[in-house]
Amino acid sequence: MKYNILEVKERVTADNDREAALLRETFRKKGIFFINLMASPGAGKTTLLKKTIEALKDEFTIAVMEADVDSDVDAHAISELGAKVIQLHSGGLCHMDADMTSRGISAMDLTDIDILFLENIGNLVCPAEFDVGSEKRVMLLSVPEGDDKPLKYPLMFQVSDLLMVSKIDTLPVFDFSKEALEEGVRKQNPDMPVLYISAKTGEGLDAWYDWLREEVKAFRASFGKEA
Amino acid sequence: MKYNILEVKERVTADNDREAALLRETFRKKGIFFINLMASPGAGKTTLLKKTIEALKDEFTIAVMEADVDSDVDAHAISELGAKVIQLHSGGLCHMDADMTSRGISAMDLTDIDILFLENIGNLVCPAEFDVGSEKRVMLLSVPEGDDKPLKYPLMFQVSDLLMVSKIDTLPVFDFSKEALEEGVRKQNPDMPVLYISAKTGEGLDAWYDWLREEVKAFRASFGKEA
Repeated sequence: MKYNILEVKERVTADNDREAALLRETFRKKGIFFINLMASPGAGKTTLLKKTIEALKDEFTIAVMEADVDSDVDAHAISELGAKVIQLHSGGLCHMDADMTSRGISAMDLTDIDILFLENIGNLVCPAEFDVGSEKRVMLLSVPEGDDKPLKYPLMFQVSDLLMVSKIDTLPVFDFSKEALEEGVRKQNPDMPVLYISAKTGEGLDAWYDWLREEVKAFRASFGKEA
Repeated sequence: MKYNILEVKERVTADNDREAALLRETFRKKGIFFINLMASPGAGKTTLLKKTIEALKDEFTIAVMEADVDSDVDAHAISELGAKVIQLHSGGLCHMDADMTSRGISAMDLTDIDILFLENIGNLVCPAEFDVGSEKRVMLLSVPEGDDKPLKYPLMFQVSDLLMVSKIDTLPVFDFSKEALEEGVRKQNPDMPVLYISAKTGEGLDAWYDWLREEVKAFRASFGKEA
């Protein structure tokens, strides 16, 4: 080994987990399937949400919480589709936590909402550390980011329930190996399903919609609302 | 406006700025030109550093501090080139601060180093908030991330001294407008130079090396070491 490895860890304390658990109960009682969507900047979160809202508008009423450090470009794009949306500004913070989420939903009318998405701040580090009270965590990784990301951002892969690899239409121009990625994913989260999608060509989106339908069905079967 | 905007800001306190200023003085006295390199995950930071070390090895002795949440793949890649490198683990934190940097350099032998790079954690949010004592801050933005990033991550663009747009060989496959990007950049940081590079084809790298040579020369002229 030709270099030192130094731990420069800081301690973060919070009762975030307790608050997240309470929030999850609230969503279950309301029958709202709440998804925490996480990814790097520019991985395609907003584009995926737009496609999903359009494709499933006759099946589900979808609402979105857009979390950003600044700006409201994403909320604007979602609102143009007629979906309920709120923009949250983190004031420089790189993640949403349960308290912020709670304040977000208290400012929304959630009557008749089937699925609520939180589009978390673009980042593979801090969003992974904070339970926001979601039922499922979905991670997007875009092909241009590279197949080595499970090694570098292990926690994000460990806590996610579904990995979607986006922009697969660009596979020919990048040095990206599905095998290398999946080997890395297996080490962090052996049972996590991996879907490959392109919002541009539409490839793989049906598998995502099917995953969503199945999960909502299972959620409703366990917590109240009829399927 | 069809949606609310909610400020969910938290307060961060620290004497980071004072510590960063002291660190900057230390580097000036030693004649080490210290660059804080920041970008999203997978934007090409390590690849750029490898190219730079190879291209300038007869002109400058370059050392690298690799900051990651976990893993040492980047430090390993750099050490194979024979450059001095240390791997810093942030223990889940999404940025480096001046104290962490200070602890990092105290574990390195900096004798005869001309240029020191900190490869910050892949992230466009928190690294922008912390002065690490660097002389210059350089930001990489890759074409696949999109031309709207100045709007969404304004602080990163405001605090940087140079923007390099990477992976420009992939311009044909992405909906990325140089004009839109530069318009966004001008709003945040009117005087910041923008370079377009591809580590794959080598395009634009000479302009980056020239920028580096000029900056080192100006630095040395101001703070001690002969050019």
